[in-house]
Amino acid sequence: MVRHVRAVSGKLDLDFSDPSWKQNYQEDWNRRFSLPHITDIYDLKPRLTTFSLKKNRTDGSNISTDMWNGYVNKNDRALLKVIKYASPTSAGAECVDPDCSWVEHWVHRAGPRKEIYYQPGEVKAAIVTCGGLCPGLNDVIRQIVFTLEIYGVKNIVGIQFGYRGFCEKGLKEMPLSRKVVENINLAGGSFLGVSRGGAKTSEIVDNIQARRIDMLFVIGGNGSHAGANAIHEECRKRKLKVSVVAVPKTIDNDILFMDKTFGFDTAVEEAQRAINSAYIEARSAYHGIGLVKLMGRSSGFIAMQASLSSGQIDVCLIPEVSFTLDGEHGVMRHLEHLLEKKGFCVVCVAEGAGQDLLQKSNATDASGNVILSDFGVHMQQKIKKHFKDIGVPADVKYIDPTYMVRACRANASDAILCTVLGQNAVHGAFAGFSGITSGISNTHYAYLPITEVITTTKRVNPNSRMWHRCLTSTGQPDFH
Amino acid sequence: MVRHVRAVSGKLDLDFSDPSWKQNYQEDWNRRFSLPHITDIYDLKPRLTTFSLKKNRTDGSNISTDMWNGYVNKNDRALLKVIKYASPTSAGAECVDPDCSWVEHWVHRAGPRKEIYYQPGEVKAAIVTCGGLCPGLNDVIRQIVFTLEIYGVKNIVGIQFGYRGFCEKGLKEMPLSRKVVENINLAGGSFLGVSRGGAKTSEIVDNIQARRIDMLFVIGGNGSHAGANAIHEECRKRKLKVSVVAVPKTIDNDILFMDKTFGFDTAVEEAQRAINSAYIEARSAYHGIGLVKLMGRSSGFIAMQASLSSGQIDVCLIPEVSFTLDGEHGVMRHLEHLLEKKGFCVVCVAEGAGQDLLQKSNATDASGNVILSDFGVHMQQKIKKHFKDIGVPADVKYIDPTYMVRACRANASDAILCTVLGQNAVHGAFAGFSGITSGISNTHYAYLPITEVITTTKRVNPNSRMWHRCLTSTGQPDFH
Amino acid sequence: MVRHVRAVSGKLDLDFSDPSWKQNYQEDWNRRFSLPHITDIYDLKPRLTTFSLKKNRTDGSNISTDMWNGYVNKNDRALLKVIKYASPTSAGAECVDPDCSWVEHWVHRAGPRKEIYYQPGEVKAAIVTCGGLCPGLNDVIRQIVFTLEIYGVKNIVGIQFGYRGFCEKGLKEMPLSRKVVENINLAGGSFLGVSRGGAKTSEIVDNIQARRIDMLFVIGGNGSHAGANAIHEECRKRKLKVSVVAVPKTIDNDILFMDKTFGFDTAVEEAQRAINSAYIEARSAYHGIGLVKLMGRSSGFIAMQASLSSGQIDVCLIPEVSFTLDGEHGVMRHLEHLLEKKGFCVVCVAEGAGQDLLQKSNATDASGNVILSDFGVHMQQKIKKHFKDIGVPADVKYIDPTYMVRACRANASDAILCTVLGQNAVHGAFAGFSGITSGISNTHYAYLPITEVITTTKRVNPNSRMWHRCLTSTGQPDFH
Amino acid sequence: MVRHVRAVSGKLDLDFSDPSWKQNYQEDWNRRFSLPHITDIYDLKPRLTTFSLKKNRTDGSNISTDMWNGYVNKNDRALLKVIKYASPTSAGAECVDPDCSWVEHWVHRAGPRKEIYYQPGEVKAAIVTCGGLCPGLNDVIRQIVFTLEIYGVKNIVGIQFGYRGFCEKGLKEMPLSRKVVENINLAGGSFLGVSRGGAKTSEIVDNIQARRIDMLFVIGGNGSHAGANAIHEECRKRKLKVSVVAVPKTIDNDILFMDKTFGFDTAVEEAQRAINSAYIEARSAYHGIGLVKLMGRSSGFIAMQASLSSGQIDVCLIPEVSFTLDGEHGVMRHLEHLLEKKGFCVVCVAEGAGQDLLQKSNATDASGNVILSDFGVHMQQKIKKHFKDIGVPADVKYIDPTYMVRACRANASDAILCTVLGQNAVHGAFAGFSGITSGISNTHYAYLPITEVITTTKRVNPNSRMWHRCLTSTGQPDFH
Repeated sequence: MVRHVRAVSGKLDLDFSDPSWKQNYQEDWNRRFSLPHITDIYDLKPRLTTFSLKKNRTDGSNISTDMWNGYVNKNDRALLKVIKYASPTSAGAECVDPDCSWVEHWVHRAGPRKEIYYQPGEVKAAIVTCGGLCPGLNDVIRQIVFTLEIYGVKNIVGIQFGYRGFCEKGLKEMPLSRKVVENINLAGGSFLGVSRGGAKTSEIVDNIQARRIDMLFVIGGNGSHAGANAIHEECRKRKLKVSVVAVPKTIDNDILFMDKTFGFDTAVEEAQRAINSAYIEARSAYHGIGLVKLMGRSSGFIAMQASLSSGQIDVCLIPEVSFTLDGEHGVMRHLEHLLEKKGFCVVCVAEGAGQDLLQKSNATDASGNVILSDFGVHMQQKIKKHFKDIGVPADVKYIDPTYMVRACRANASDAILCTVLGQNAVHGAFAGFSGITSGISNTHYAYLPITEVITTTKRVNPNSRMWHRCLTSTGQPDFH
Repeated sequence: MVRHVRAVSGKLDLDFSDPSWKQNYQEDWNRRFSLPHITDIYDLKPRLTTFSLKKNRTDGSNISTDMWNGYVNKNDRALLKVIKYASPTSAGAECVDPDCSWVEHWVHRAGPRKEIYYQPGEVKAAIVTCGGLCPGLNDVIRQIVFTLEIYGVKNIVGIQFGYRGFCEKGLKEMPLSRKVVENINLAGGSFLGVSRGGAKTSEIVDNIQARRIDMLFVIGGNGSHAGANAIHEECRKRKLKVSVVAVPKTIDNDILFMDKTFGFDTAVEEAQRAINSAYIEARSAYHGIGLVKLMGRSSGFIAMQASLSSGQIDVCLIPEVSFTLDGEHGVMRHLEHLLEKKGFCVVCVAEGAGQDLLQKSNATDASGNVILSDFGVHMQQKIKKHFKDIGVPADVKYIDPTYMVRACRANASDAILCTVLGQNAVHGAFAGFSGITSGISNTHYAYLPITEVITTTKRVNPNSRMWHRCLTSTGQPDFH
Repeated sequence: MVRHVRAVSGKLDLDFSDPSWKQNYQEDWNRRFSLPHITDIYDLKPRLTTFSLKKNRTDGSNISTDMWNGYVNKNDRALLKVIKYASPTSAGAECVDPDCSWVEHWVHRAGPRKEIYYQPGEVKAAIVTCGGLCPGLNDVIRQIVFTLEIYGVKNIVGIQFGYRGFCEKGLKEMPLSRKVVENINLAGGSFLGVSRGGAKTSEIVDNIQARRIDMLFVIGGNGSHAGANAIHEECRKRKLKVSVVAVPKTIDNDILFMDKTFGFDTAVEEAQRAINSAYIEARSAYHGIGLVKLMGRSSGFIAMQASLSSGQIDVCLIPEVSFTLDGEHGVMRHLEHLLEKKGFCVVCVAEGAGQDLLQKSNATDASGNVILSDFGVHMQQKIKKHFKDIGVPADVKYIDPTYMVRACRANASDAILCTVLGQNAVHGAFAGFSGITSGISNTHYAYLPITEVITTTKRVNPNSRMWHRCLTSTGQPDFH
Repeated sequence: MVRHVRAVSGKLDLDFSDPSWKQNYQEDWNRRFSLPHITDIYDLKPRLTTFSLKKNRTDGSNISTDMWNGYVNKNDRALLKVIKYASPTSAGAECVDPDCSWVEHWVHRAGPRKEIYYQPGEVKAAIVTCGGLCPGLNDVIRQIVFTLEIYGVKNIVGIQFGYRGFCEKGLKEMPLSRKVVENINLAGGSFLGVSRGGAKTSEIVDNIQARRIDMLFVIGGNGSHAGANAIHEECRKRKLKVSVVAVPKTIDNDILFMDKTFGFDTAVEEAQRAINSAYIEARSAYHGIGLVKLMGRSSGFIAMQASLSSGQIDVCLIPEVSFTLDGEHGVMRHLEHLLEKKGFCVVCVAEGAGQDLLQKSNATDASGNVILSDFGVHMQQKIKKHFKDIGVPADVKYIDPTYMVRACRANASDAILCTVLGQNAVHGAFAGFSGITSGISNTHYAYLPITEVITTTKRVNPNSRMWHRCLTSTGQPDFH
């Protein structure tokens, strides 16, 4: 299962018989992951940062330290997730070449730099949250405001309801400060409001120009990242000294190159309630079948992790792994088997699972009904029909906890992640980067160019140990 | 702040001017982190594992796959946490040599091997939990039992109340099976019971021999790991074909080479309640001072992470960073400042913080009182006395949530960690390793030789970004 | 708004001008609320109870007390909820006569009697749970078992999956004891399983006879109470010395004469999560409308209390209060108003609300779709359509938390209620009562004859202070 | 166990042989429970209230109803908790006379009156919270503000940090409005701050006069109620038209004549965490003894209810029931017995339990240590010492969750209670009452004169069914 890097980047064609492929590869990697910087368009000299922990005493006095180790060096690098696979047959092996040579995937370390490219007292910074809700949005907003204030920024505003807030007349900028955002993390949702889609790039940049915004912090998913990058490019084109820095927000955890995105951990935690309820309902009913639909349009991370974590799931279905519902080895047959053996069972499906089946069932549907886009609802109907058809009682309880999961406040682990991502976003902007995003890769906080991050979505590797662990936990068979 | 690896291992003396130091270092590393195996004492041929996801269908039929990528190759390696620091002055830099050369720290990847060294049907496996409580103990026990059963082991027993259960007459082996442990993870604590200390190694091994135990799974902290290793060594000496595999249990997260230990995440989460209560009490009182003591004998990870996560802490004190209480730059002066400025404040201390101060204060104590071993209580008294002395009202509320944190059940994130660590412990034993422990290093699951893991405790690096982030969050000054 | 008791009982026709009406009424009341007793069919002498707290010492020795005040006297009575309304126009006034005369509504006090009618060592007791899930089922089961054991009963069994378990072949009796049920209260659901409907009365009683069951404890709703009473009557007819004692289980809290039923408090608590999620979603969206459907087929108690408790609901719709959706004073117009004024709103509907509207909308539906039985789903579609039609953006988020609420374990308050109801059920059976149910009336625990309790369902009084408080809290107008 | 009402009121000496005693008693009761009203000092005419749900339509139009049943009639009465005990030996019997005659204890029903005595637009209302924290304080504050605004009050202020805020220079009035208090109920604590003690009555009234306060809402315990009454009396003396209305705040639930006080339910709920932790710790340890101290200076309601609710407590000790620790029938002997039989045990003590023993142990203490005022700590030391002395291992884990319980936000049930109490407080003030408090008696909301409520504290009746249920649940013996 060798996966050439080309699959991801589409940019490099390597000939592995050429001894220099590794060097070519490495150079290509470094080029791609270098970070866009405002000195690319401007001839700017950095100034020393005002962000420091050094002269930090109750009485305001200064501790003299010749060499204080508080800053990240611009040449510090972190490795992306890397195992040295001995063979392509190793569980979960993802290799660059057929021999699974180990190559280093370096990314830029995130954090405060000693030298910055903005005069804090003159900066106007704006924050915008896009897309659907995700636990931790308020933590990120709050931390960006706090960190900007520590740098000395006084003019901080929130853009309401996503990119829409740039253009819609009635939506004014919200002035932000420590006092305003102090406790917003105690509630879920977005203090600034979210919305999908919104405005044209040129219109947004007109606005940025008119409002004299120097830094734009975009918290959003894949689409909003693409938007942020377009804004970044348009700003460059217009020679605007604007830093556009993103923080990835996707509850599905489907962003490339990152260990996890904020909110994911909380989502898995909250999903436990729904799963446990389904388990209790199923177990307390005669031939009970609990069915839980979890988030995951194209990636089944939440379903997989929540199933693994609960230990109460018998069947977990995700978009990355195809399956049949009917037939000798289909899911239905297995559910029959479970009712017979255990008396009940619990099924967890990602919303994007089985899309091929939905299309098929649609094809054979003669009455012209609208296309079922929700696999959870489809599955519920399918199970009911199946057991009715075979004359076996089955008591199906369907739970869709989506909004109750999304609207949660961040748990402790996500709160820390949000804190750091927010702080790093500000450090990145002051360091002069633009068109970048702030993430955690292989336990280290890193900056990545948006262009690389949005090439595709991260998906569960069906050959990975984590998916195998999930299968071990559910005990589910191969549905083919 | 160059840290030579000698500090950790005490085994290698490198001359960095010698061009071959890196190779020497690497060889030493590989030697040290190679895993003890039962073939070191026995001439054994492996058999093919019965643990497989391949022939896994509802009707028991087999899917023919020529090359199934389900196993971990014995030569798979994972990298320990590594950043390439550009300079020793980079924040958090830990370098081997003065130039911060980047060297690879490989460890063995954990997971199921294709070849195993035990006949599952004949194996007797025992599980023991040692030390204090930690969220997730039952998850690990449960998963070890499940995985053993999947391999085909039928004889599984629990040793009650730690090593004590080997020797104390009244404490019988508890027979374990899926049915028995199915739901034990829903409650905190240890299903098998824990206790500290217990028995002599020789006595334990006598017992292992008499009871014909083939695999011993030890879930415990540093001390219990040392014990497990001693048992492993004694078994080798007696030429017993026994695999001793440990799973690190320390709520303090103070185990070397590991991202985190199970229970830590839950502890940080639960500590939020205590911190928030302290915050509410402090804020609602006139000149309120909330004081929370969290776990952490020699390492302040819980206090640091919980402070960072809560965003409600003004002062965080940990064992790794010394401080003064009195004087111009002392903690007391800062508390005065906070009461003046904010009207209230919240302090979080690790139990092992300020040990030097406790001894000093003890030395100067003339009335012959017993030695204060608890910094939390000491701090409470100190604050009360200080504000009484200076005639400023202060309403101190002290919270010690230790037992309420320890006795929790694992949260979702820890439940997954426990699941994998438990599964891997069993895979390790069947693969023939002994004297090893099961951990997560740099997001990858790994096996490590116990001897390396117990050389010292992991501690917060005061120069790390994480500690600096905590300082940024609390806004606390340098207390010197 | 005078409500004659006839409306409830259908049994008495009072002439208020006749001076003796009050006495007639009182006599009728006493007659109706007297408790069926096994001495009605048998000539039995009571024995002294073995249930006592007197001789209760660690060493088993006896405390001599001449007169121990531990038992409930058979003539003890408790008053049902009573206010002396000064006028029929007083808020919430429910009066017997047009002058709102105050009359006493006595019911039998529940608790242990000094004299019992069964020999504990010979008793076989059975427990059955019927209908849907409700928090606290396991608490009641557990406490019945505990109390039976304290009396000295050794033969206790659980009937699986409701009345179905009496007749379905595969469903065996589950032997119950303290050890078995010790921790079942830590999880939600029913340890015995539930199901709806089931078996014919005669078949059940055949079974009771064949299995030699002496006491049957039925935990279920209105229908199961009717069933229990039918069993009780059939047992009398056959002259079987069987005590049938019920414990009301209805999460909707719609049982007559009772302050509340177990599980209701927990349901209101858990519903807060759903409401808060809807609030967060609505508030974070541009023109967000959160819609929560809560349980309540014919009674809106959960919706009313949950709305009141949350303080986040703008519109609460219950079955007892009719409303219009369209038109000048309809709900839709008010939602428009809220979006305009606040930018978002949150609506809570009981599942049984607006049934008249559902039929209407169904009648005008030309495409032959299935009948909408679910007001929540209907409301969701209605709101979407309405705002689409008037060209105002509206982002509707619909949450149905039913299963997640039902499957919860009981909170502390319900745990106590369940404990007492379960204990009292056993006391009632030993005291020789049959055809009764165990409830809490006006803060006192009472026994009530099933016949009176099932005459109709308890409903929210639209003129009550509690509903007015809810209106004050939501600020919603009259929708007519 | 006849309890004459004299014990409570100290005002009436009844001769039960005199046939008119019942009438005398009733008259005395009515006199005592009549409510102080501002027309007692002023000749005032009421105006019609502006508080109405009638003309409540989205378009502001009015629904014409001739007779709207929204108000409480001034002659509406509710009965205090009453059972008709058949005999003084009935469990929990509290009788007025030796025959346990049933007498009616009427109190005034709370709620909005049609006629009010203030012009809302001119009213200045102040709110003050006194004493320690209690869940629900913010809910009450919030609801008072909301209800005042509905009446039309525009000038609402918060007094900071209890009565202290009236006099301390730096503490300014906080302007309150719906916007300010909208979400304060989402956090625990008091938004206004609390403190104990504070200022002299005359000084406070000077202040009230100077600030032109018309209504003062005091949320506090017994002491603060006494303070409120003194303020009320002083205002009358000075002929100030000020309504002083209290809302009882005591987490201990020790206020006379009330079913429960706000925060109590939440406290019992939160205490479950501590108890469960103690249970887990005890059960997981070899000879583990879990010890939990709960609030309750003079009344053991929290300890009793929390023990009953948890079902995990083996011994519950409260101030109202004396016990011995040592000797044949002492608590220590019973703990030995439990360790022997079960291997572990869990003890719950109210902080005010065993005060007689503390004095004794103090008396025999020769080393001159300070007096132990905390029974929890004493008990912990006592148990440790006892088991050390008898040479039996015992692992004692002591948990004091006080601050973590107090600082919680109100649960759903308390949120409703707070909502209604707060609303009623405002209704009471507008109705012209002063020197009253707002409570719930026998499931009905009532107004009570402060003077009656503060005569003594409510305590657990050791002969009540509730205490007996607790004993049945713990299985603890008589410790004498």
